[in-house]
Amino acid sequence: MPPLRAMNSGASSSSSSASAPSRGAGASSGHPYAADHDDTDELDLLGDDDDLRRPSILAGDPLQSDLSSPLTFKRKQKQSGLLSGPARFFHALTGHSSHASPLPRPSHDLPAGASASASAATAPEASAHAFHDPSAPKDFSTSAHDWYAEGPGRRVGYEDLTAIDWIFEYTKERQRQRALRARSSTLYPGLPFLGAAQRLLDASQVWIVLLLSGLAVGVLAAAIDVATDWLGDVKHGFCSSADGGRFYLGKTACCLGYDAGSQCRGWTRWGDVFGAQGGAARWVVEGLVYLVLAEVFALSAAVLVKEYGIYAMHSGIPEIKTVLGGYVIQRFLGLWTLVTKSLGLVLAVASGLWLGKEGPLVHVACCCANLFTKLFPSINNNEARKREVLSAAAASGISVAFGSPIGGVLFSLEQLSYYFPDKTMWQSFVCAMTAAVVLQALDPFRSGKLVLYQVTYTSSWHGFEIVPFVLLGILGGIYGGLFIKANMKVARWRRSTPWLPGPVTQVALVAGLTALINYPNPYMRSQNSDLVSSLFTECSQMRDDPFGLCGRSATSAGNILLLLLAALLSCSLAAITFGLQIPAGIILPSMAIGALTGRAVGIVVEVWQRSYPGFLAFARCEPDVPCVTPGTYALIGAAAALAGVTRMTVSIVVIMFELTGALAYVLPIMVAVMISKWVGDAFSRRGIYESWIHLNEYPFLDNSDDTAAAAAGGEPIPDVPAAHVMTRVEDLVVLTATGHTMASLAKVLADHPYRGFPVVSDPRDAVLLGYISRAELAYTLRAAAQPPRSLPPETEAFFAHQPLADPRTTLDLRPWMDQTPLTLSSRCRLHLAVSYFQKLGLRYVLFVDRGVLQGLLTRKDVWYVLNGAEETRRTSGMAGGGGAAGLGVGAAGVVGTGVLGAGMVNDDGDEEGERAGLLGDGESALVSPGADGGSFL
Amino acid sequence: MPPLRAMNSGASSSSSSASAPSRGAGASSGHPYAADHDDTDELDLLGDDDDLRRPSILAGDPLQSDLSSPLTFKRKQKQSGLLSGPARFFHALTGHSSHASPLPRPSHDLPAGASASASAATAPEASAHAFHDPSAPKDFSTSAHDWYAEGPGRRVGYEDLTAIDWIFEYTKERQRQRALRARSSTLYPGLPFLGAAQRLLDASQVWIVLLLSGLAVGVLAAAIDVATDWLGDVKHGFCSSADGGRFYLGKTACCLGYDAGSQCRGWTRWGDVFGAQGGAARWVVEGLVYLVLAEVFALSAAVLVKEYGIYAMHSGIPEIKTVLGGYVIQRFLGLWTLVTKSLGLVLAVASGLWLGKEGPLVHVACCCANLFTKLFPSINNNEARKREVLSAAAASGISVAFGSPIGGVLFSLEQLSYYFPDKTMWQSFVCAMTAAVVLQALDPFRSGKLVLYQVTYTSSWHGFEIVPFVLLGILGGIYGGLFIKANMKVARWRRSTPWLPGPVTQVALVAGLTALINYPNPYMRSQNSDLVSSLFTECSQMRDDPFGLCGRSATSAGNILLLLLAALLSCSLAAITFGLQIPAGIILPSMAIGALTGRAVGIVVEVWQRSYPGFLAFARCEPDVPCVTPGTYALIGAAAALAGVTRMTVSIVVIMFELTGALAYVLPIMVAVMISKWVGDAFSRRGIYESWIHLNEYPFLDNSDDTAAAAAGGEPIPDVPAAHVMTRVEDLVVLTATGHTMASLAKVLADHPYRGFPVVSDPRDAVLLGYISRAELAYTLRAAAQPPRSLPPETEAFFAHQPLADPRTTLDLRPWMDQTPLTLSSRCRLHLAVSYFQKLGLRYVLFVDRGVLQGLLTRKDVWYVLNGAEETRRTSGMAGGGGAAGLGVGAAGVVGTGVLGAGMVNDDGDEEGERAGLLGDGESALVSPGADGGSFL
Repeated sequence: MPPLRAMNSGASSSSSSASAPSRGAGASSGHPYAADHDDTDELDLLGDDDDLRRPSILAGDPLQSDLSSPLTFKRKQKQSGLLSGPARFFHALTGHSSHASPLPRPSHDLPAGASASASAATAPEASAHAFHDPSAPKDFSTSAHDWYAEGPGRRVGYEDLTAIDWIFEYTKERQRQRALRARSSTLYPGLPFLGAAQRLLDASQVWIVLLLSGLAVGVLAAAIDVATDWLGDVKHGFCSSADGGRFYLGKTACCLGYDAGSQCRGWTRWGDVFGAQGGAARWVVEGLVYLVLAEVFALSAAVLVKEYGIYAMHSGIPEIKTVLGGYVIQRFLGLWTLVTKSLGLVLAVASGLWLGKEGPLVHVACCCANLFTKLFPSINNNEARKREVLSAAAASGISVAFGSPIGGVLFSLEQLSYYFPDKTMWQSFVCAMTAAVVLQALDPFRSGKLVLYQVTYTSSWHGFEIVPFVLLGILGGIYGGLFIKANMKVARWRRSTPWLPGPVTQVALVAGLTALINYPNPYMRSQNSDLVSSLFTECSQMRDDPFGLCGRSATSAGNILLLLLAALLSCSLAAITFGLQIPAGIILPSMAIGALTGRAVGIVVEVWQRSYPGFLAFARCEPDVPCVTPGTYALIGAAAALAGVTRMTVSIVVIMFELTGALAYVLPIMVAVMISKWVGDAFSRRGIYESWIHLNEYPFLDNSDDTAAAAAGGEPIPDVPAAHVMTRVEDLVVLTATGHTMASLAKVLADHPYRGFPVVSDPRDAVLLGYISRAELAYTLRAAAQPPRSLPPETEAFFAHQPLADPRTTLDLRPWMDQTPLTLSSRCRLHLAVSYFQKLGLRYVLFVDRGVLQGLLTRKDVWYVLNGAEETRRTSGMAGGGGAAGLGVGAAGVVGTGVLGAGMVNDDGDEEGERAGLLGDGESALVSPGADGGSFL
Repeated sequence: MPPLRAMNSGASSSSSSASAPSRGAGASSGHPYAADHDDTDELDLLGDDDDLRRPSILAGDPLQSDLSSPLTFKRKQKQSGLLSGPARFFHALTGHSSHASPLPRPSHDLPAGASASASAATAPEASAHAFHDPSAPKDFSTSAHDWYAEGPGRRVGYEDLTAIDWIFEYTKERQRQRALRARSSTLYPGLPFLGAAQRLLDASQVWIVLLLSGLAVGVLAAAIDVATDWLGDVKHGFCSSADGGRFYLGKTACCLGYDAGSQCRGWTRWGDVFGAQGGAARWVVEGLVYLVLAEVFALSAAVLVKEYGIYAMHSGIPEIKTVLGGYVIQRFLGLWTLVTKSLGLVLAVASGLWLGKEGPLVHVACCCANLFTKLFPSINNNEARKREVLSAAAASGISVAFGSPIGGVLFSLEQLSYYFPDKTMWQSFVCAMTAAVVLQALDPFRSGKLVLYQVTYTSSWHGFEIVPFVLLGILGGIYGGLFIKANMKVARWRRSTPWLPGPVTQVALVAGLTALINYPNPYMRSQNSDLVSSLFTECSQMRDDPFGLCGRSATSAGNILLLLLAALLSCSLAAITFGLQIPAGIILPSMAIGALTGRAVGIVVEVWQRSYPGFLAFARCEPDVPCVTPGTYALIGAAAALAGVTRMTVSIVVIMFELTGALAYVLPIMVAVMISKWVGDAFSRRGIYESWIHLNEYPFLDNSDDTAAAAAGGEPIPDVPAAHVMTRVEDLVVLTATGHTMASLAKVLADHPYRGFPVVSDPRDAVLLGYISRAELAYTLRAAAQPPRSLPPETEAFFAHQPLADPRTTLDLRPWMDQTPLTLSSRCRLHLAVSYFQKLGLRYVLFVDRGVLQGLLTRKDVWYVLNGAEETRRTSGMAGGGGAAGLGVGAAGVVGTGVLGAGMVNDDGDEEGERAGLLGDGESALVSPGADGGSFL
């Protein structure tokens, strides 16, 4: 019997025409069957020990163990002599024979699983599973058998770029732990301490991973600091071995021991090497070397990324957010990405481009954690636990980037993480602290400081200064809003302009431009971290003053203009740099831009106060002490700019608090950050990372609640019934529980690209029985067609209890079906459905009224609805994906209720269209590695 | 027709016999009808503006506006001439007439609401609602009318001690915001800025509340600090006005200007007043005064609490956790509680009892926030938003208690809050920071420090010291575990011992005992905060040394023993003090006990290092500099003890980090805290607050996930199908949709104490239609029986679409029914149901298989299951509630499936039994205020 399908809507047909090429490719390359090659170790829910024990891939199938005896799905209550005590107990509890229910029970096949499981327990094969403890009551020691007759069903692994099922993963973890407990009590009977020790060992795996990650991140950060410093200095000169130096030393190390200001003999500038005499010639020669070296570094970074690890590009934070939000991006956190990102980061930062290493360090930290999880299959095979570990490890990236462990934890909590339980906070804290302590022990700057720009202020602020601080907050917000707009415009222009050169050439061009602009401006010529460090520092504490920030000329109008010019130019450069195909963060450039502006404002206020000390506002200044500290203005400006760009709040204040260590400046920082966020939100609700997620169309479902957004005038979740948004049953491909053969199911798979199919009782009634995903269905069909079962294509396949079916000659698909999919009433509001996705981490929700299937909503649909209509329109007109996305939109216009506009593609079948839109240009970050035909859920 | 009720199980009958007295009382006192007196302002979902407009309580009922025209619930599609555009659009979208569905639609009454709503829009009355914007599309601008035919139904307010419905509250808030937007666009057409300003004002209400709370908390904390200090000093002497002092000054203020050590002339000791000559006489006289004053202070506090605010007792943190977890405890955060708690806290702390002010300050902060929310009805009337504000404000309590704003935020996040979105974190941070800044500005200690025991260490720690630090961690864990056990034992003994005197006498006895023990021991005689401050301080930084911690005698064996003795004695005293009927926290006593132990260990290590400087481990000590700082041991000991008692991690480390301000000591603190937590967890998984929640049987559903608990060998959620735990349909009282009269429904209410009733189609079929809560049903029945409707008792009442019913002579209960209750399959695991309750904040879940009602699970049931069987058994044998709880357990043994044991009371009807158990003794914290017959959900 063919599957139900109502063709009265244009949606499915147009979407299938849009996605025809990729679907064909998927089918011909055998993609649905690829899973069992990659994911055999994920097949078994109970860990790898069982894997060793089974001879073939099907031996773990509970159906297989029953093949030896002529098992049917008939009830086994009649064989009461064979029933063991616990099983009998179970039957008494379910109460089907004990007393008559006054209400009719519609599901008479419910106890089938129980009886089958009970009979399996009496069969000798079952005890071959070491974790299967026959002494425990049947209904407590849920073994693998329980999966087959009820519950969420068995699963094959996730494909690339699909959403994970959080509930399923946590259920898997509980199964594993129960098995572990059962196994340890079997292995060490009478030795409970050994079992406890084994469980302790199991629990300590996360800690080992996090401690190792913290250690690795600390070491890597120190190495990156040192290497970046050295390469950055090499652009200006080198440590001459002729004078007792070593070529591998940076300027600071080379000149260690020389007093500030005195000529350092070991350090040789390029002008001297090439014998350039006179100021101008020397300036030109050194500029040329600077330009060439900057180009070399930037090009090396770009080639490295292009050739060895495309995922190493960009800051990585949008992708990490997406991964932590529950998506699988294979190889994004792999070893090659780690190596490429670390090396590329050093080169990119050293090249003098306007980018930072803070965001990429978070990516590095996540890569480290991901690599160490591979040591422990129990974490590595559970996508939810892996994400917990990654959330925790991400904190160490910010911890070493700013020397701010608590700030790192809050960054992970505020910016990155999707699911952050209390225990993750503690793990995160330990990891961040380990990394910070390691970094402090390695002391890369030989100053005892964790980061260059750690500062201490000797004086506090005065009341009147709150006015310039508020001004800095406003400026920071304006900067953030404009920067995001400009950066997005550049990114879109870059994607939509066909005549642009390749990504490496683009990097070369930007690097050249940057070097040309940087070199003449003393503030921009040096490394960002040096600049920020100098800008933050109080004049009385500054030992050497490379930028002339404290000299007499510092307060000149020229210098103020130079500072502002530097801020403006670097803002423009950062806008074209962030998005290039090199590792690049935006945090430090933002801080530098804010600090430049802040310092300028600070100097203005300082001059004003010095000129008019009698002005009423300055009354509280003491006469002979410097009243205004421009360094604090730089700090507050940096915080405000950072808040404007990233829209973080607590993390920034805590990071700045940890940089300065003084409670005194927390209040102005807080005020500036808050105002900056407000002003920035007036431009757009999305911070830079969210904007990139949006631009790249990552299916990230933000789980921050919407009432705040609505209160601030943002776009709330549309308040419509979920029925307006769901894919209605008429437009779904549903499977009937009976009447299918393996061939007909294979045809359904070949005909329809959908990621899963609801299963209903029969076409007239449409009572929902369950949901089977494409991957599981495809895997089972293939497995059944192969030895040892070798079922012919005409074999009957069913999803319901078939009392008369012979399990040797029919295929029962129930073990692979989610028999308890989460359902909602179709009359509930969309809000509630969105809460389901956000809070429970679902992949799909089925809408059921009085048992009858009404429709389906996937996570992707919700994402489309929440991300609005206009964006998709833009993409459809712009992306080079052959207009697939545009077709998808057209389709949705017919499928959807139209209320939400054309952007609402509520059909899984449109995903190839989306993907084509996503990958329409060769530079999109989320390219599908390999031709496995995977697609988003 | 009587409600369905299967009497084949003994559950309901035995539970009703158990709860017969209280149920009878509830019915006779008219409790089900009490709600509309208390909660009229919560009746209307759309704020108070509408309230002013309606003449009677029923005028807001959407049914009323329809009474003027002979409206039936027939479909209105035929009147197509009257249908407005949007409504027609809606019909096109739902697709009932546009194209034939291949699947039959079972719910033909679905569009009835839509058509009724459309017809209401055409009626002139509808535009009387100012928020009802006729220009917006019907299906976007959901007005009050939408509540009546679909969705979660209308509600009356919450009764005391019931759970709130988070989803409903947030829906209400969205409705309010939509109304606000619609209203502002109606009020200011063409002036969008005015509307935006109004929305901004609305959004700023939370900030105003939090800033005011922060301010108030800062001021209150300073006042409490000063008053406590003064009263504490008064026990020893007074500031004599004869010598130029002022009686209202404490010792420090009185002696300001005198050098340390020199005789302060203004300060007069009691021994001098009473002319006691000689050491012994003086010691005795001063001891007597000390004893008398301690008694007076403690008694005043106890009487104050007993007479004016019983909720001011204890630390308040268990109750705050319960409130934030979604329960209503009326008056717990009222003005009287605030006043009593503040005054009582000053007296209790000054009395020298072993209690702290940190926990109570959190309660004070929440009281402040709660009072300020009363300024803004939009927050005050929304229980979910109120809880967000309280979560944020709670941070300010810890912020001022420890001078640690970030620690406060993390404390709220880690320990208190149930729902803590990112925006709450920022609000919390602002509130905590405001309070800290205000406190710093007031400078209660005249030292610039926020708290007495803020310290700076000049030296760092050495590698070998990690061994004693680990030892301190272990000791802290042991202390925590034993303390919790002892404190629980004392509390249980106190409740179960009938011959004990009243609470005030108990306080007097404990205060006397404490004074007698405190006085001879110099460490215990002074205030806890002074002691902790001295113990933390490095000897080189100590200006005066009241305890002789740095003199030559400090390193004597006698002093070490005295420190340890003080730790032991104060541990015992704290165990009997925490739980008395006075405001009392446990944080500072724990810190003091840990600091005493830590200092002792530190002195031992110091002596050892001095004696054997050549020992291998001490090799890294520099020769002439003190190598070991005992103050740091005290700090780490305090952190470990705090971790052992509260089981917090990050918060403690951050609080200690903020107290010292040095990254250097974070690593050892972290190690000690972690080890202490592990050791403590080996004793029991519950920290002191969780233990008290458990002891008091607060229905707090912990939303920390259970895999961590299971990994550490704790009690995981039992892995059984939800069907084993739910109240099965046979044991439920369900209402049929039709066939009831008002009298029969009133009889159901009178006969059954349940908090709500599922509504099914008919007794044979049991297809679930919705769920109506007792409060709403009772309210509607009473309202319909009164003018203006004055329906007679024999009026037909129905829950389903009745096409032929005349709305003037029948009662449609659908507006008050939750028509889209959240449902699960009865075959899902209990885990999933628990996730629903934890993550979605539900009050009940209905179990449905293929549309047919299978059972019900309430939040309270889940709480019972998670809190295990043995505890209830214990209570039943112990509580003085007439054995009601015991009977409840017996009943559950029959109702339940028996798998989980006898403790699983899965029937709402048992709640009176539970309550009797809870209130079996007069000292239980959660006494029901007034005789309103309210009960837990």
